[in-house]
Amino acid sequence: MLSFASDYEEGTHPAILKRLCDTNLEKSPGYGSDEYCASAAGKIRAACGAPDAGIYFLGGGTQTNTIVLSAMLQPWQGICSAASGHINVHEAGSIEACGHKILALPSHMGKIDPEELEAMCAGLFGDENHDHMIMPGAVYISQPTECGTIYSLSEFTDIKNICEKYGLYLYADGARLAYALSCPENDVTLKDLARLCDAFYIGGTKCGALFGEAVVIPAPALLPHFFTIIKQKGALFAKGRILGLQFDTLFTDDLYLHIGGPAIAAADRIRNALAAKGYSFAFNSPTNQVFVILENEMLPKLAGKVSLSYWEKYDGSHTVMRIAASWAVNDEDVDELISLF
Amino acid sequence: MLSFASDYEEGTHPAILKRLCDTNLEKSPGYGSDEYCASAAGKIRAACGAPDAGIYFLGGGTQTNTIVLSAMLQPWQGICSAASGHINVHEAGSIEACGHKILALPSHMGKIDPEELEAMCAGLFGDENHDHMIMPGAVYISQPTECGTIYSLSEFTDIKNICEKYGLYLYADGARLAYALSCPENDVTLKDLARLCDAFYIGGTKCGALFGEAVVIPAPALLPHFFTIIKQKGALFAKGRILGLQFDTLFTDDLYLHIGGPAIAAADRIRNALAAKGYSFAFNSPTNQVFVILENEMLPKLAGKVSLSYWEKYDGSHTVMRIAASWAVNDEDVDELISLF
Amino acid sequence: MLSFASDYEEGTHPAILKRLCDTNLEKSPGYGSDEYCASAAGKIRAACGAPDAGIYFLGGGTQTNTIVLSAMLQPWQGICSAASGHINVHEAGSIEACGHKILALPSHMGKIDPEELEAMCAGLFGDENHDHMIMPGAVYISQPTECGTIYSLSEFTDIKNICEKYGLYLYADGARLAYALSCPENDVTLKDLARLCDAFYIGGTKCGALFGEAVVIPAPALLPHFFTIIKQKGALFAKGRILGLQFDTLFTDDLYLHIGGPAIAAADRIRNALAAKGYSFAFNSPTNQVFVILENEMLPKLAGKVSLSYWEKYDGSHTVMRIAASWAVNDEDVDELISLF
Amino acid sequence: MLSFASDYEEGTHPAILKRLCDTNLEKSPGYGSDEYCASAAGKIRAACGAPDAGIYFLGGGTQTNTIVLSAMLQPWQGICSAASGHINVHEAGSIEACGHKILALPSHMGKIDPEELEAMCAGLFGDENHDHMIMPGAVYISQPTECGTIYSLSEFTDIKNICEKYGLYLYADGARLAYALSCPENDVTLKDLARLCDAFYIGGTKCGALFGEAVVIPAPALLPHFFTIIKQKGALFAKGRILGLQFDTLFTDDLYLHIGGPAIAAADRIRNALAAKGYSFAFNSPTNQVFVILENEMLPKLAGKVSLSYWEKYDGSHTVMRIAASWAVNDEDVDELISLF
Repeated sequence: MLSFASDYEEGTHPAILKRLCDTNLEKSPGYGSDEYCASAAGKIRAACGAPDAGIYFLGGGTQTNTIVLSAMLQPWQGICSAASGHINVHEAGSIEACGHKILALPSHMGKIDPEELEAMCAGLFGDENHDHMIMPGAVYISQPTECGTIYSLSEFTDIKNICEKYGLYLYADGARLAYALSCPENDVTLKDLARLCDAFYIGGTKCGALFGEAVVIPAPALLPHFFTIIKQKGALFAKGRILGLQFDTLFTDDLYLHIGGPAIAAADRIRNALAAKGYSFAFNSPTNQVFVILENEMLPKLAGKVSLSYWEKYDGSHTVMRIAASWAVNDEDVDELISLF
Repeated sequence: MLSFASDYEEGTHPAILKRLCDTNLEKSPGYGSDEYCASAAGKIRAACGAPDAGIYFLGGGTQTNTIVLSAMLQPWQGICSAASGHINVHEAGSIEACGHKILALPSHMGKIDPEELEAMCAGLFGDENHDHMIMPGAVYISQPTECGTIYSLSEFTDIKNICEKYGLYLYADGARLAYALSCPENDVTLKDLARLCDAFYIGGTKCGALFGEAVVIPAPALLPHFFTIIKQKGALFAKGRILGLQFDTLFTDDLYLHIGGPAIAAADRIRNALAAKGYSFAFNSPTNQVFVILENEMLPKLAGKVSLSYWEKYDGSHTVMRIAASWAVNDEDVDELISLF
Repeated sequence: MLSFASDYEEGTHPAILKRLCDTNLEKSPGYGSDEYCASAAGKIRAACGAPDAGIYFLGGGTQTNTIVLSAMLQPWQGICSAASGHINVHEAGSIEACGHKILALPSHMGKIDPEELEAMCAGLFGDENHDHMIMPGAVYISQPTECGTIYSLSEFTDIKNICEKYGLYLYADGARLAYALSCPENDVTLKDLARLCDAFYIGGTKCGALFGEAVVIPAPALLPHFFTIIKQKGALFAKGRILGLQFDTLFTDDLYLHIGGPAIAAADRIRNALAAKGYSFAFNSPTNQVFVILENEMLPKLAGKVSLSYWEKYDGSHTVMRIAASWAVNDEDVDELISLF
Repeated sequence: MLSFASDYEEGTHPAILKRLCDTNLEKSPGYGSDEYCASAAGKIRAACGAPDAGIYFLGGGTQTNTIVLSAMLQPWQGICSAASGHINVHEAGSIEACGHKILALPSHMGKIDPEELEAMCAGLFGDENHDHMIMPGAVYISQPTECGTIYSLSEFTDIKNICEKYGLYLYADGARLAYALSCPENDVTLKDLARLCDAFYIGGTKCGALFGEAVVIPAPALLPHFFTIIKQKGALFAKGRILGLQFDTLFTDDLYLHIGGPAIAAADRIRNALAAKGYSFAFNSPTNQVFVILENEMLPKLAGKVSLSYWEKYDGSHTVMRIAASWAVNDEDVDELISLF
């Protein structure tokens, strides 16, 4: 059956699989001290223009968000996030489980509004009782967002300026970063991310890797003993080389910068075709996810033919469904998908 | 200088002070195993019609809320609370510091709306991805609320029914419970609280005690090893008898049921006088707190003459100030206060 | 019945009770912002020769240990403590509940041996796998110890030097500090404590206060936002003045320095009398606690006449019982106690 | 260079690599809901004789230990473990970071002595002050242990009986379980583990998998909402199929039961050869790890020729080094290794 349910349904890019096979009989020292991790870290530093950055390879997105954010924050600090932020909704309370409050801002198609962030900070830091309250310590954004939208460089810079004004760290969740980097509308580069963020991660799981994410900490003194924190949180891979080798491949010949291209093209084709057929969309997402509004009676018709993701109820008779095109999408599947509508 | 800033500014009821003096030379066994704690617990059980209730004496409200709620909940559970709930705003993130998310509901003058609670529960428990999400485990309400309002028995029962439907514990923060119990509009008795709540606390600090709160757990099997949890959280008093003796006094001759009366009368007098002078109020609070809306230029005029509490900005030119009458209020101070407006 | 079970069985020093009565009708601003707290803090700073010290008043010892130590430490750090340390045995795992491992050292009558501390630190910091392990971040000692012994200034200084060598904080639990300060054998003054420790607390609960402990942080920048941490841990008293007033009294006319004197004299008298009768002792404690070794058949004989504390089994036929003399001890009770042996 | 440093230095079993390649173009639903996970779980249940067991696939050993143990325990409970237990030494305090104290027992070549466990439990549960103390809630053992030793079925049963007597859960860390199962001295089968343990894990990372561990919970009602706990701890793999497919392969045709065989044979050969040359060993380990005692001057001689693991200082002039043979060991390397001594 056809599936556009998610971009994590795929295996891995053939180049990665080949290298896993080619190197399988090698022995490597553990815990990320191997040559593949070193090589991958070097290539990522170069791609980010961050020669001193700390690069750490972790297993998944929730793990990465939890570890970085909890390592960044003091006990009296919380995290500003869009109400729709993945950490606020779909990570099973992992942030609170580490002791930190999420300070939710309205979601504008997945994005936070710099003015609303400024107002929240001004209100909290200026409150007479602020020492009885949780103060913001970091801002969490996703690029692209959970709604498939992207922050422009201008918006990103506005948020950064607010962070600097109030002494907040800026952290970007890049679970689907490849799909932003391949998007024609995007003007935020890896170098911009490294310049603007105190930490961000380069998503592998949904972007061509078998699994894994690469954390980039441009000024690594920010998170001392981060290696031990990773270990304590149960996130340190004994066979770090498996992760290092994947990211080394993704950052060879700029593979990561282009790997999302077919997905963007496919999503555009889907968006145009469905719009032409009269469908409308919940969010103006320019990346690899399409959030189409369907009449409820359409759902059982599609059910046996294609797997999509339920997103949310739109109204009494409509539902928002997510169509996700992955880096491995093929034209025939897209044709077949479009023909179902 | 006159002060109506808060009901915790007072010392303690003379009857309590007398007993502290009378018993000062006695030796008592520690950690709540003394006769005063036993006597107080017996009287509270009787007043609540809860003969099997576990009664624990703690030092303050934030401590009590944190300990009871964290003991109630499993790691995957959060707490439904009005956005204005004390645990969500002014307790320095103590709930999240114990690992639990607060699921905020709109505040209607400090109260949650049972229909909105029902909708939240239906949405979360019914979500396709609910096992990636925090599920409600308890409902937190305050009686009276932080805005001085009170839940009616009917509203309380509606909330309880939703709790039963979804398997949630119901917990009531009674920091100012005496002021609800003494309020003519109130129809929720201690026996109702013990019948409807899985736990609640009887506030002492703001209601005539030198300090301290009494937790009531009608079915104590709910919170096994609660004594050890109290110890672990640093809340077990070596000299438990100091707390026991205070609550024993407050529950002798129904003192606690009446101790808030003068405060309610004073607050009514203040409300009526200020209304007659044309002032309006942010909340319709029938208890001991009055939330008056003042023009900003009025604030410096009052500043040298009376201490009030800043509550919140009302609009560009007005501020909400809280006037709190305590159990120890006297008529002369009320006259003088009114004359300032 | 006679009781020498603990020094927390008493009420409070008459001078404190009198001031509580004298000031009961006053109104004070909350959360430690009152004049009594300010005055007490000033007097404590002067007594400690620590003019910049942060002074915080908390409710009990476990609470104080937990809050200070957890505020001091990073997630990858643990606490070196004697195996017999109160935090390691009788505080219900409060330190681990805040996320920190206790690194237990052998107890030498309650004290740690500087050489063993040095060896532990050398071993851990020098371990090849130290970044997979918890590293020491602080040293916890009690003055006097749980066994009634005291560190000499020389021992204290040796420990401090090791702390400086390895970058560890030094924290002293002074639950019974008054009994060290009043002990003729003691040569560690308040000023020494303030000079050698990064934080310590001056015990009130067992030393004449109704309840409460005073934390001294000589260089308060060590623990930023400590006020909010106290609030978050549920330890901030709304009526801070109750605590401030007690410590203001204890530090007026050097009361705290002398308040333990009668207890030391009584304990000495008990020790001498029991030794003369042929009893021996588990620990060479020069302070207010006497740890006498009794034949098991003696226990039921004493049981109806005096309350002592069970300490530990000595061997198959003997038990160590603790006799604690308090600041409020009187000669008649001591005579009667001795006559029972 | 030759390496016998660890069994995690290898890649993965060719059969696993082949299936990863064969299935790479398939799309699978996420989070363990795929057919590979279902198939693997079924095979593991059958191998364990535990038809109702909950089977969960996680990424690594520290993660698994932390999640299972913290899910098992209540806040007032700790974990009995050998002092040498991996959770007590080399997991960066992950257990304490989740709030639980480790109650360390003497290590007898990595094993706990049932009599000492019984004595600890009797002492703690029988202590007069036990409600001020952490009580055991679970027993942690490793099979094989960190020292390469194995519990006999008789020892395992003794420990289980103590667990039942005191109401403790029994948990076995099977990071190297394949090497116990392939060991001729071993008499504890998978079925025994499932019968005796409340939870255990089947190690993949060190036993032929690319990475991953399989948790077996024979009576899964023990750990409700375990899926959400996994998610909250950041351990839920989006592409669960990668893990499922590996364990499906390991449990096809009893591969897992035999995969450790070559390692045991190689370790035996190394042990015999080194013993014949006059070397002695720190532990009597019958599994894949050899703990040889070397004169310190030998270390630099070996350093350029073979990578071993430093284990511990033996005395002033000797060091214990670990030689680990893996499932992928070959005879030539063993010959070469032996020739170096």
